[in-house]
Amino acid sequence: MNDTYLGIDLGGSNISAALMSSEGKLLCLEKIETQARQGPAAVIRRLIELARSLQSGEKTSGFKIRAMGIGVPGILCLENGLVRFSPNLPGWKNIQLLKPLQDELKIPVIMDNDANVAAFGEKWQGAGRKYQHMVMFTLGTGVGGGIIFKGHILHGHCDAAGELGHITVLPDGPRCACGNRGCLEAMSSGTAIAREGQALLKNGHRGVLERLSRQNGGVTAKLVFQAARQGDAKAHRIVEKAGQYLGIGIANVINLLNPEAVVLGGGVASAGEILLSPVRREVRKRALKELSACTKIHAAKLGERAGVFGAVGIAVQAFAPVRRGPERRSWGRT
Amino acid sequence: MNDTYLGIDLGGSNISAALMSSEGKLLCLEKIETQARQGPAAVIRRLIELARSLQSGEKTSGFKIRAMGIGVPGILCLENGLVRFSPNLPGWKNIQLLKPLQDELKIPVIMDNDANVAAFGEKWQGAGRKYQHMVMFTLGTGVGGGIIFKGHILHGHCDAAGELGHITVLPDGPRCACGNRGCLEAMSSGTAIAREGQALLKNGHRGVLERLSRQNGGVTAKLVFQAARQGDAKAHRIVEKAGQYLGIGIANVINLLNPEAVVLGGGVASAGEILLSPVRREVRKRALKELSACTKIHAAKLGERAGVFGAVGIAVQAFAPVRRGPERRSWGRT
Repeated sequence: MNDTYLGIDLGGSNISAALMSSEGKLLCLEKIETQARQGPAAVIRRLIELARSLQSGEKTSGFKIRAMGIGVPGILCLENGLVRFSPNLPGWKNIQLLKPLQDELKIPVIMDNDANVAAFGEKWQGAGRKYQHMVMFTLGTGVGGGIIFKGHILHGHCDAAGELGHITVLPDGPRCACGNRGCLEAMSSGTAIAREGQALLKNGHRGVLERLSRQNGGVTAKLVFQAARQGDAKAHRIVEKAGQYLGIGIANVINLLNPEAVVLGGGVASAGEILLSPVRREVRKRALKELSACTKIHAAKLGERAGVFGAVGIAVQAFAPVRRGPERRSWGRT
Repeated sequence: MNDTYLGIDLGGSNISAALMSSEGKLLCLEKIETQARQGPAAVIRRLIELARSLQSGEKTSGFKIRAMGIGVPGILCLENGLVRFSPNLPGWKNIQLLKPLQDELKIPVIMDNDANVAAFGEKWQGAGRKYQHMVMFTLGTGVGGGIIFKGHILHGHCDAAGELGHITVLPDGPRCACGNRGCLEAMSSGTAIAREGQALLKNGHRGVLERLSRQNGGVTAKLVFQAARQGDAKAHRIVEKAGQYLGIGIANVINLLNPEAVVLGGGVASAGEILLSPVRREVRKRALKELSACTKIHAAKLGERAGVFGAVGIAVQAFAPVRRGPERRSWGRT
């Protein structure tokens, strides 16, 4: 019977699940709605049902699910298996998640913050495969991320390390959702880029962005990138600025942690070179040469699957029997 | 025969050495001049002579030196025992340090960057004793520091992590010695505070600072603190600004690493509450509440001894037999 591992990515809108081998071979991928409004008990029930439906394939398909990993949005207490608070899941306040999953599914379960888990996914099966020290920035509506140190997620004292979106990159910058000013999230997230694009139009800008905005019923970060690529100089300046501040954040991380690689994921990062080129320029300017020389900057590879792959990955790392061999050494346990 | 451990703090001006027990009992403290201008071979010879003179006490005093730790200023390659480059030691470029020490002294030797070692000293015997995750900022002429993670120094990919002085805290700020603009070192070091004081006088300031400057033949950071304490509002504003930018650096570190404690050492930190109060205010404003709530900010305890104590500490951590007991568990090897 083939050992497999179950990974679940619990999001505010959807729950994704994957079954994979310990080497990262994908056997099955599922997605259901979270229906988060029904509250914690209902969501936990849906998680259990989803996992059970996958377990039910064990007999017919000749595999055995050995363990499960789950990525959860919010602040967790890993030691107690508790979700302390989740901004995306209404009613989740000090909710015990680990115990009901283990009790019902009768397999070992490990949980972690969803951004950490996505970073681990890229480390395990994506752009970070070769690296033991890796930092991932996920640039979407907000900016999140995770730090991989010696092949493992770095958690910090109360399991809350890796809040990469809340590095201050401009002390008097715009207000961030967290209350601070000039956080990386307030400068380089999709929301920030769209906000700058909207401000441009409000100030009477008449370039490509204005046309795209009319055609699409509003400004998004994606349209700002598109306008920049089509020669709108002011839209281009917005992208460059977002890249510069992202570069400051990355340079800070390099000077602090001396990682082998920085991986950039999320919708904003998929803009490609138009964003990455100012990022690299700023990193070269600001990080110490000895450090930036040994840090590679890569685009993420797994896209939205990083979370669910990472959830499998943490289960494999925690529960799969350790094999001594080059394949194993290549990604962890140093 | 009592096991003891030798620690050496190699500085640009002085070499300090300490003999301590594995529990941190100090037996002997020595200091000689580095005479760095004589070059690497001569300095290594002096290190060996100093260590041998301490070893020569073994027979008469009934102790045995089991291992040695040494803190070295500069960029090291730990795996090879190499000093890649040291700005404070002329001629040190790819100099093998570990091998001659081990060969001549016939004991195991461990080396590390001096700022990391000082941080470890505070962790082992100073303000960080209770903490497994700790970050130390050393605020002197420059700003250095070290990160302690799970009771061990965090090194990063090429042994260069922990460059806390080179976090960008003001993107368009003054030029730093490293070439970047607005590094923490360019805003909150003793040099930066003195520079601001000098600029004040140059602009015709006539407060307490001007009088102190005349009496002492120039402005130093210490005099700026003194003037601020004696009611010079503009000098006070300089201190407050240095504290604010230090607070930004600390908030960034908290949001990234979620440490249990931040320890502030060096001459600037000894200014006390006049500096710490704006630091704390800024951290409260900028770090995520869930994270700052679990991070304590302490003044360092060991002063200049942090380096040499830390050098003993890394030797104890690397080479002392592991004891199972509460005393041991309290500071490492988790």
